[in-house]
Amino acid sequence: MAACLKCQKKFRVDHLLQEQAKMTDTQTENLNLNEIYTQIKRHKIKCPECKGDLGQPKYFMTMFTTTIGPYSDAIGYGRPEAAQGIFVEFKRLHEIAREKLPFGAAQIGHALRNEISPRQGPIRLREFTIADIEFFFDPEEPHCPLLKHIEDETLRLIPAARKQSGKNEPVEVTVKEALKEYIKVEWQAYFMVLAKKFLEELGVEENRQRFIEKLGWERAHYSSQGYDQEIYLDRWGWTEVSGHNYRTDYDLEHHREHSGADLQVFKRYDKPVLKEKIVLEPVLVKIGPIFKKDASKVVAILRQSDVREVETCLKTKGSFMAGSFKVLPEHVRFVKKEIEETGKRFTPHVVEPSFGMDRLAYAVLEYAYNKRNDRVVLKIPRDLAPIQIGVFPLVTKDGLAEEARSLCNMLVIDGFRVEYDEAGSIGRRYARADEAGTPICITIDYRTMKDQTVTLRDRDSWSQVRTMKDNLATNLQQYFLFKREFEEMGKIVQPNKKL
Amino acid sequence: MAACLKCQKKFRVDHLLQEQAKMTDTQTENLNLNEIYTQIKRHKIKCPECKGDLGQPKYFMTMFTTTIGPYSDAIGYGRPEAAQGIFVEFKRLHEIAREKLPFGAAQIGHALRNEISPRQGPIRLREFTIADIEFFFDPEEPHCPLLKHIEDETLRLIPAARKQSGKNEPVEVTVKEALKEYIKVEWQAYFMVLAKKFLEELGVEENRQRFIEKLGWERAHYSSQGYDQEIYLDRWGWTEVSGHNYRTDYDLEHHREHSGADLQVFKRYDKPVLKEKIVLEPVLVKIGPIFKKDASKVVAILRQSDVREVETCLKTKGSFMAGSFKVLPEHVRFVKKEIEETGKRFTPHVVEPSFGMDRLAYAVLEYAYNKRNDRVVLKIPRDLAPIQIGVFPLVTKDGLAEEARSLCNMLVIDGFRVEYDEAGSIGRRYARADEAGTPICITIDYRTMKDQTVTLRDRDSWSQVRTMKDNLATNLQQYFLFKREFEEMGKIVQPNKKL
Repeated sequence: MAACLKCQKKFRVDHLLQEQAKMTDTQTENLNLNEIYTQIKRHKIKCPECKGDLGQPKYFMTMFTTTIGPYSDAIGYGRPEAAQGIFVEFKRLHEIAREKLPFGAAQIGHALRNEISPRQGPIRLREFTIADIEFFFDPEEPHCPLLKHIEDETLRLIPAARKQSGKNEPVEVTVKEALKEYIKVEWQAYFMVLAKKFLEELGVEENRQRFIEKLGWERAHYSSQGYDQEIYLDRWGWTEVSGHNYRTDYDLEHHREHSGADLQVFKRYDKPVLKEKIVLEPVLVKIGPIFKKDASKVVAILRQSDVREVETCLKTKGSFMAGSFKVLPEHVRFVKKEIEETGKRFTPHVVEPSFGMDRLAYAVLEYAYNKRNDRVVLKIPRDLAPIQIGVFPLVTKDGLAEEARSLCNMLVIDGFRVEYDEAGSIGRRYARADEAGTPICITIDYRTMKDQTVTLRDRDSWSQVRTMKDNLATNLQQYFLFKREFEEMGKIVQPNKKL
Repeated sequence: MAACLKCQKKFRVDHLLQEQAKMTDTQTENLNLNEIYTQIKRHKIKCPECKGDLGQPKYFMTMFTTTIGPYSDAIGYGRPEAAQGIFVEFKRLHEIAREKLPFGAAQIGHALRNEISPRQGPIRLREFTIADIEFFFDPEEPHCPLLKHIEDETLRLIPAARKQSGKNEPVEVTVKEALKEYIKVEWQAYFMVLAKKFLEELGVEENRQRFIEKLGWERAHYSSQGYDQEIYLDRWGWTEVSGHNYRTDYDLEHHREHSGADLQVFKRYDKPVLKEKIVLEPVLVKIGPIFKKDASKVVAILRQSDVREVETCLKTKGSFMAGSFKVLPEHVRFVKKEIEETGKRFTPHVVEPSFGMDRLAYAVLEYAYNKRNDRVVLKIPRDLAPIQIGVFPLVTKDGLAEEARSLCNMLVIDGFRVEYDEAGSIGRRYARADEAGTPICITIDYRTMKDQTVTLRDRDSWSQVRTMKDNLATNLQQYFLFKREFEEMGKIVQPNKKL
C-alpha cells in the first residue's frame, strides 16, 4: 500500500504495478518494500486519482486482526476461508468415515476479509458466508464411480488456453470430453456438474452459466487446477458464485509439516509387496577397537540415523558425525535387503467446491423477480420459499375465518410454513402472496362449509384447482418435493391465464 | 484490570472488589481508575493467587476490537449480542408486520465476547451462537391474547425476594399466579412458558428447569425485569440457557436519541380526543415598535420555539433570546387552546427471550446420552436426529443390497436424512445406529424380496415392527411429526425388550 503525496489517497501498489506495468501476480509477490518502491519510480507509477507522486509503500493486512483474552497479548485473525477447520480435523473425520476413501466433509460458516472496496451490495462483503466441501481421495485411485451417471452432461468451459488467446466464448463439451482435455480430476468434473445443476435448481439456466479456468498466476498457492463458476446477473454482469479447486495434498502436507500431527492414511496392499531396501550395518570389528567403551553408543546412533544421509556424508565429506563421534567409511557397510511391506502411508488429495452463499441468495432473488400485469411476482423456487402456503377466508364472517384458522394450524402441525391473511379483497391477498413469493394460496369459501373442498391457487400460472381438504397435506407434501405438479392437485377450476 | 506486582497475573478489579469488599456492581461501575486504586488500598485487596500487591488498574475492553478497511482508520467491534440489528431495522419490520402491534422478529447469529476465562467447553465460548426474539407491544395494551391457552401451565420460579432471603428452592406457580406477584408483563410469562416447553422437547424435564429473577444490580442496563432460565446439567450444575428480559422502550429510545431516526409508531384513537394545550402568541403591537424591520423574524422564531422553554426562561431569567433578539414577558402571551388529536405517537415496549444455542446443543447431547447393556444409546429427540433412518440389507448377496440401496434413494427423494450401511452383522449395525442416535432402522431381508415387507426397529425400545414397503414414506412422515408412535407403524414382531 502506498499513499499519494499530493491527495493522501491510498492504493494497493501490487495492483497498480499489475495494471500499469503489466507485471504478474507472482512478480509483484516476490518484491520487498524497497524493490516495490524502485519499481514505482522506474515505471513512473502515479496516483490514479490526481497523478501525484506515490510515497514509500507499507505492508497492510487483508485479514482482520484482534487481540484475544483480557490482557491483549494473543493476536487473533478473522478466518479468510472456512476450509482449514476440516483439514485440522481430518483424522477424526476419516475415522467417522470408517477410515475409507473417498469421503467428503461439508460445512457452512462466516469468513472475514478486510476488502479494500466492498462495493456491489451483497456481491462483495467484508463478512460473508461460505459453504464448502473438502472431498478427499486417493491420488492413485482417482476414479469417480458416480461419473457414469453424469458423463453425458454438458459443461460450458473457458479453459486456460482459450482464455489466454483472448476468447471469452465458452466451449460446450460433455464431461467425458472435458476430462480428456480440460479437467484434471474426475471428482472435480463431478462436482462441477453438481454445481451446474444446483444453480439450475436455483433458477439460473445453463446458458447463463460458465466455468472459467484460472491461469497459473491467478490460482491460489494451494491449487493445482481451478475453475470459477460464473453466472450472469443483470445487475452485476458475469459474477463468480463458486470455485472448484484441486488442492492436491497441499493443506494436509503443510499442517503436517508445521504441527507434526499425523495426517496420513494407511493403505493395505491386496498382498504384501517385497521391496529392496538398502540397510546400514555397523562393522563391529572395526568400531570396537576404535571407540572402545563408547562403541555401543556409536552403534545405537548409527542404527537410528538416516541411511541415505550417512551414505552421502561418507561419500562427500569422507566421514559422518554420530553425535560427537567421527565415523569413517570402513566403520559401516551398506547391504541390500528384501523387506515385506503390507501397505503404505500417504496423504490424500482434495478437490474443493466452495460456494459464496450471499451471492447465491442474491442470484435467487434476481432470477425470481418477475412482473406480470405490472405486478411483482417473485418466482422463487418452491422448495426455497420462506412462506410456502397462504390461507385465506373469502370473508371473515359466517365461520369462514375460524375454518381458515383451523386449516392453517393443521398445516403448521404438518410441518409447513404457513401465513394466515384475512385483510383486504382476495385479489389483494393474492397479489401480496405473489410479491412475497408464496407458491400456493388456499381459499376457504362458502362451498368449503358445505362440501369440505377448498381452492388452491398457483403463484406462477395463476391457475386454480379445487380439492378435498382431507387430501391437502399429502398433496402439498408431494408438490413441495417436486413429485406432483400444481394441476395434479385437484380439479381445474381456473386454467392458466394466458396474457 | 490490575496486575499483581509479584506474580504478574492480571485480574478484574471490579470482580475482586465485589467479592472481597462486598461492593455492588453499580458501586464499582461508578468508580474511575484512581478511585478504584484507592479502594484496592483501603480494602487491602491482594492478588488472589499469591497475595502480592496489585498495581495501578487499567481499563480493558470486553468487546473484540479490530480496524476496518485497508487503511486501518475505522475501528470496529465484534458484536456482543445480536439484538441491536432488529432495533435499528424496527421501522422496516413494523412495515412488514403491516404496521400492527404486537409483532416479533426472531434471528440467530454469532456474538463475540472477549471472556477472561472461557472454560467449561461449549458453556462459555468467546464466539457463540445466540438466538433471540424481540417482541414489540403497545405498553398501554399489554394483554397477551394467547395467554388463555397456557395460563394453567406451571413455572418454577425463584423470584428476587426469595433469592435475596437466601432460598434456592423455586416456588411452583401457575402462570396466572405468577402474573399476580412475580412477572410484570404477560408476554414475558408467555415466552417463559414456551421456553419451558421448548426445553422439555429437547429432553430436559420440567423439574430439571427453573427461572431465577435477576436482582436490580445484576440486571443489564436495558432491563426492567429479567429472568434466567436455568437447567441442571450433570457436568456443570445449574446453567443458564436463556434470558427473558423486559427491555421496555430502552433500545428504541436510545437509538432514537443518538441517531435522530424516527422509531415511533402512530396509534389512531377510536375517536379524536380534544386536548387542552398552552399556545404561545406573539403580541404584535408590542413587538412591532421595538424590533421594527426584524419584527417578523422574531415572530417566526418564537412560533418555532418550545413553549415551555420560553415560559421557563421568561419566568426565571426575565427574558428569552430568540436568536440574537431579547424577548421580554410583555412581548408574548400564553393562551390555553383545545386541540383535536386523532391519535398519538409512542415507542413500543419489548420483551426478549434470548437463547444460547451452543449450550442448548450441549444440553441435548447430555440428556440424550444413555446406556443400555453397556452400550451407548443416544436418545436424541427424533426430530433433531442428524440421521433419521438407517437402511440395512440383512446380507449383501442375492439382490438384497440393491433392494436396500433403492429403498434408501427413495427415502432421500422423499426428503429424509438416510444412511445406508452394509458393514458387519445386523446387531453391530443396530449398535452403531444407536450410538449415532438414529431413531429408526429398516432391514431388508429375504422375505422382503417375496412380499415387499420390511422390518423397522426402534432405537429407544429396541422393539421391531413389520410393514409394507409402500407405506413407509407416509408412516415415517407421521412418525417424525410426532403424529404416530413407533408401534403404530406396523405389526409388532419383536416387543419392547425389558431389561
